Amino acid sequence: MYRKEIKVLDCTIRDGGLMNNHLFTNEFVQNIFKASNRAGVDYVELGYKADESQFNRNEFGPMKFCSEKDVEMAVGSEEKNCKISVMVDIGRVDPDDIIPKGESLIDMMRVASYVKDIDKAINLVNLIKSKGYETSINIMAVSHSRENDLDEALQQIENESAVDVVYLVDSFGALYSEQIAYLAKKYRSMLPSRELGIHAHNNQQLAFANTIEAIIQNVNYLDATMLGIGRAAGNCPLELLLGFLKNPKYDLRPVLEVLESEFVDLSKKIEWGYTIPYALTGILDVHPRAAMAVRKSEKPDDYTSFYDKLVNEANV
Amino acid sequence: MYRKEIKVLDCTIRDGGLMNNHLFTNEFVQNIFKASNRAGVDYVELGYKADESQFNRNEFGPMKFCSEKDVEMAVGSEEKNCKISVMVDIGRVDPDDIIPKGESLIDMMRVASYVKDIDKAINLVNLIKSKGYETSINIMAVSHSRENDLDEALQQIENESAVDVVYLVDSFGALYSEQIAYLAKKYRSMLPSRELGIHAHNNQQLAFANTIEAIIQNVNYLDATMLGIGRAAGNCPLELLLGFLKNPKYDLRPVLEVLESEFVDLSKKIEWGYTIPYALTGILDVHPRAAMAVRKSEKPDDYTSFYDKLVNEANV
Repeated sequence: MYRKEIKVLDCTIRDGGLMNNHLFTNEFVQNIFKASNRAGVDYVELGYKADESQFNRNEFGPMKFCSEKDVEMAVGSEEKNCKISVMVDIGRVDPDDIIPKGESLIDMMRVASYVKDIDKAINLVNLIKSKGYETSINIMAVSHSRENDLDEALQQIENESAVDVVYLVDSFGALYSEQIAYLAKKYRSMLPSRELGIHAHNNQQLAFANTIEAIIQNVNYLDATMLGIGRAAGNCPLELLLGFLKNPKYDLRPVLEVLESEFVDLSKKIEWGYTIPYALTGILDVHPRAAMAVRKSEKPDDYTSFYDKLVNEANV
Repeated sequence: MYRKEIKVLDCTIRDGGLMNNHLFTNEFVQNIFKASNRAGVDYVELGYKADESQFNRNEFGPMKFCSEKDVEMAVGSEEKNCKISVMVDIGRVDPDDIIPKGESLIDMMRVASYVKDIDKAINLVNLIKSKGYETSINIMAVSHSRENDLDEALQQIENESAVDVVYLVDSFGALYSEQIAYLAKKYRSMLPSRELGIHAHNNQQLAFANTIEAIIQNVNYLDATMLGIGRAAGNCPLELLLGFLKNPKYDLRPVLEVLESEFVDLSKKIEWGYTIPYALTGILDVHPRAAMAVRKSEKPDDYTSFYDKLVNEANV
């Protein structure tokens, strides 16, 4: 019944960390890692590998940096069955920080890139691959790319990169399932020698549904987070994805345990998930940044004035 | 671009009323009606037409009963452009309360029925139809019906009833889009002379996605509620549905206004929407009643013990 090629990647700590500068306690990070590791999740993404000369450890938690020592802390005494991934942003990573895979607990590095930066992404991914890591390129904001630019980028990735997985990323939570299907078919046909992944946002409560649509379209790498935590409206909820997948190696129970022990409190301290301003940026296919500002302002529920502003901007 | 046959039915007051015995203020009811009426919504469902000898007005708000006087109150001074629907439950309505359509503000009556009660539903719907109303049969809990029983019920509806619309109802929020597509195709082929509708629940955050899938499968009557309010995990959010539909007659703005003025407070007073217990009953395809009890108990976030209980019960 199940497709053994499917890999679940839990980016709870990485994407959730965008909401609090990764200022999680060590215990929280360890508990999340432990839960996903025991749930049979294939990859746990701990954070970013950010350049310490650009970002300050006084402002950001350890999972912004993911040095070997930080990663060892996250794993703690847990027997590591999953793989560990980190994200690297173009221009925000020091290539000298990337030690050979044989010396690292990290298994995969994922490069986030806009279509316009695809040459830089390919260079970076080829460097990382040469050090022995699994790699991905996550093409962000694909709902905003011009189709011929996207086609060219995919062609280039297929021809010039050593990347293992290419992700379809719905950064703005703007895409409907038919559009996911259309793009997944395009990626599949233009990247015949690579695996595909999906990273969906939940502005329109479609992150889980779009992930299922991607599965139907033979996408095998699936991003999800516990209780959908992540920037703005958040991501595909891991608990729903594990409930859907039929592979008996996945066990929902460790995830429920950590949702109960860690997330009930956390969701009272930081906000993420479906709200009307995020729904509106999703519907209108724009970056959630303006909606995030509204939610942090003194008037987080001024929906109509926010809507009028977005619509007026779109009509200029 | 748009399909003119599509009708949106806002059941905010009716389904939302299940969470508070319909004890909304008159002003709230009027504001919801006004907002949907001005948003171009095709039908506004105000509540139930419950038998006053069975239910007490001291315990339930007016929208449990929807007498003509109650409906007049809801419409208030607003110019009625939408149609008004009410729901009738088999055995809970006094047929003598159903006056001829010409004397009523109500346009449509919807009969909720399990597959096993389909004969009663057909009798009731034929009575209502003979009084001049539009009618629907909403076949509840379809994820639990045996396929040959469902087939027989659909055949009977086609042959013996005067009903206008037959609804596919995912009462437990258990169905994935492929299953919605499968059922919608079945309904379409077995009910060639009727319109089809969809009423989805949001236990797995799939209510909106499944409504879109139903649209793709030529289902034209679409239930939704503001901010997804409704029993347990609630329904397809009206604001997302209007944002998706391309018919220029729909206007999102009046809905945003009332979300801002009425729902920010309401969502602090009564709980509905996605929580882990509702997700679990959806994943396991069981009635949300046990999850509702957990959410009302002193331990609303004891996810693991609730999960263990559900799994044990399923294995007995």
